[in-house]
Amino acid sequence: MPQIAVGVVGATGLVGEMTLQQLAERAFPVGDLRLFASSRSRGQTLTWSGQHFTVETIREGSFSDCQLVFCCAGTDISRQVVPQAVAEGAVVVDKSNAFRLQEGVPLVVPEVNSHHLAGHRGIIANPNCTTIQLAVALSPLARAVGLARVVVSTYQSVSGSGRQAVQELVRGSQQVLAGQTADAAVYPHPIAFNLLPHIDGFDDEGFSGEERKLMTETQKILSLPALPLAATAVRVPLFYGHGISVMVETGETVTPEQVRQLMAGQEGLQVVDQVEQLQYPMPVNAAGQDQVLVGRIRKDESFDRVLHFWVVADNLRKGAATNAVQIAEALLSTWE
Amino acid sequence: MPQIAVGVVGATGLVGEMTLQQLAERAFPVGDLRLFASSRSRGQTLTWSGQHFTVETIREGSFSDCQLVFCCAGTDISRQVVPQAVAEGAVVVDKSNAFRLQEGVPLVVPEVNSHHLAGHRGIIANPNCTTIQLAVALSPLARAVGLARVVVSTYQSVSGSGRQAVQELVRGSQQVLAGQTADAAVYPHPIAFNLLPHIDGFDDEGFSGEERKLMTETQKILSLPALPLAATAVRVPLFYGHGISVMVETGETVTPEQVRQLMAGQEGLQVVDQVEQLQYPMPVNAAGQDQVLVGRIRKDESFDRVLHFWVVADNLRKGAATNAVQIAEALLSTWE
Repeated sequence: MPQIAVGVVGATGLVGEMTLQQLAERAFPVGDLRLFASSRSRGQTLTWSGQHFTVETIREGSFSDCQLVFCCAGTDISRQVVPQAVAEGAVVVDKSNAFRLQEGVPLVVPEVNSHHLAGHRGIIANPNCTTIQLAVALSPLARAVGLARVVVSTYQSVSGSGRQAVQELVRGSQQVLAGQTADAAVYPHPIAFNLLPHIDGFDDEGFSGEERKLMTETQKILSLPALPLAATAVRVPLFYGHGISVMVETGETVTPEQVRQLMAGQEGLQVVDQVEQLQYPMPVNAAGQDQVLVGRIRKDESFDRVLHFWVVADNLRKGAATNAVQIAEALLSTWE
Repeated sequence: MPQIAVGVVGATGLVGEMTLQQLAERAFPVGDLRLFASSRSRGQTLTWSGQHFTVETIREGSFSDCQLVFCCAGTDISRQVVPQAVAEGAVVVDKSNAFRLQEGVPLVVPEVNSHHLAGHRGIIANPNCTTIQLAVALSPLARAVGLARVVVSTYQSVSGSGRQAVQELVRGSQQVLAGQTADAAVYPHPIAFNLLPHIDGFDDEGFSGEERKLMTETQKILSLPALPLAATAVRVPLFYGHGISVMVETGETVTPEQVRQLMAGQEGLQVVDQVEQLQYPMPVNAAGQDQVLVGRIRKDESFDRVLHFWVVADNLRKGAATNAVQIAEALLSTWE
């Protein structure tokens, strides 16, 4: 198998770290490896597969020897770095929000729409964390019985906001348990033992950025641009894992048992739905694995084609790093 | 003002304790006060308004001198105790699930349907915690523009499960922060830094008891028995306060600004909806107060009569004890 020269931008962040871990776990054919981060991390040494790597800052020509770059930084950084990496000849899997809705940029969840990857050069966008797990769960229904309407409410962990948010939840939890008030720096309000119905900025219509991403990205991935989809996104005091409560109206009538069968046949999706044995998806069992978990599948009692279910995934793995490495694997298979 | 002889069953539990606190805070005209609990608490002394009270177990005739009894125990206890208290001449405000849907038993949120109280003897049921805050938020819309459909997802704190659940979240959080695995006894799985899509038992249709309560009780309180209402109930790692993400389809078109005005005019409901100043309802600002908070009010972009919003309340106060004392106050005003 040919070795690929890989660059990782944002290598010292939570998603960058998990991407490196996934490249090793999944035995991605990494040849040369270049690690990039901001000047705060310059000179730091990271160990990967038993070798030491020095973290570099990005300069002109940084990517000229990279075939594939994972960009694991924020949207502002991606806007600068991704065009440079493409200009210098790399294919970029970008995890930010910068290019996801851009025409000509595939937005890919490999189990759902990897056909967009064949022969693609330039930018490939990795969707938002909650979008990925929602798309995996909706995809078998979209194909088999069609989707008429989706309404979701999310329960999102702090690791989606990066390492400092994880530290803020640790510190805030300790403060509350010690009878103090939790402080807030990453978030505008304390997150420990609290709920923030606020992820990303608000637009004039009152939707948050996270809600918009979930709505527009899911439409693009499923190739259903007119699908009615409404989202409410809430940050909850968890470290890892995102939950989504989903209401879906299908095109055709389908029973919960048929839904379980359709979902069980979907790559990347695991049905955990034995409520009589108290088995249902939870962040503690999703954390550390790459499958999206779905359960609590049941029929609405007022509307024939409406179902409700509950989806959980590890937001750093399938919701970010795993999906990006899976994109690279699928892409690579088209290069051979 | 005449003094009322009051009994409190379950006086040592979280809701019983809060009921006693509310009776004092709201200056309810308590004459004689009798406190009851299980044999585990017998002989324990509680202080209320500067006086000491010995906790008693319930015997025949326990309630014969009580005019009003607050029953703050579980459903099984209520099934035994409430009929006894009624037979011995008391009016009972019961906080359990035992009698809520029984014909002839008013299920009351005073700001919404206190007209059922006039002259009522016997049992008055206090609704489920999430139902109360949902009913307060939906009521002004039901009256002004009608309701065609409601879909909700809940985010419920552990105090709804009682004192041992609060202790389990304390202990579990400490364990996780110390790098250990949280244990579980009250809940079937660890609740610390986790989500349980499971509150109360599951029925054959896959709905949980909590979801059923929210659906059927809201229909009864709003006098809309055929209202399509679907719920997903999730336990989240908070101590106090419940959040609800609500989708509502109204009978007539209404703008978010009109909704804010309607809601601002509803007794017991406070609109907290300045997202540009990052003001929205959160458990940390609902805890310790009696108002239901509503915000994130916005219009669905696919359906003209569909709105989304977010509701938070203190589940021990308005979700339980405050509502029960308000029922008693409203009842009392009809006795004079």
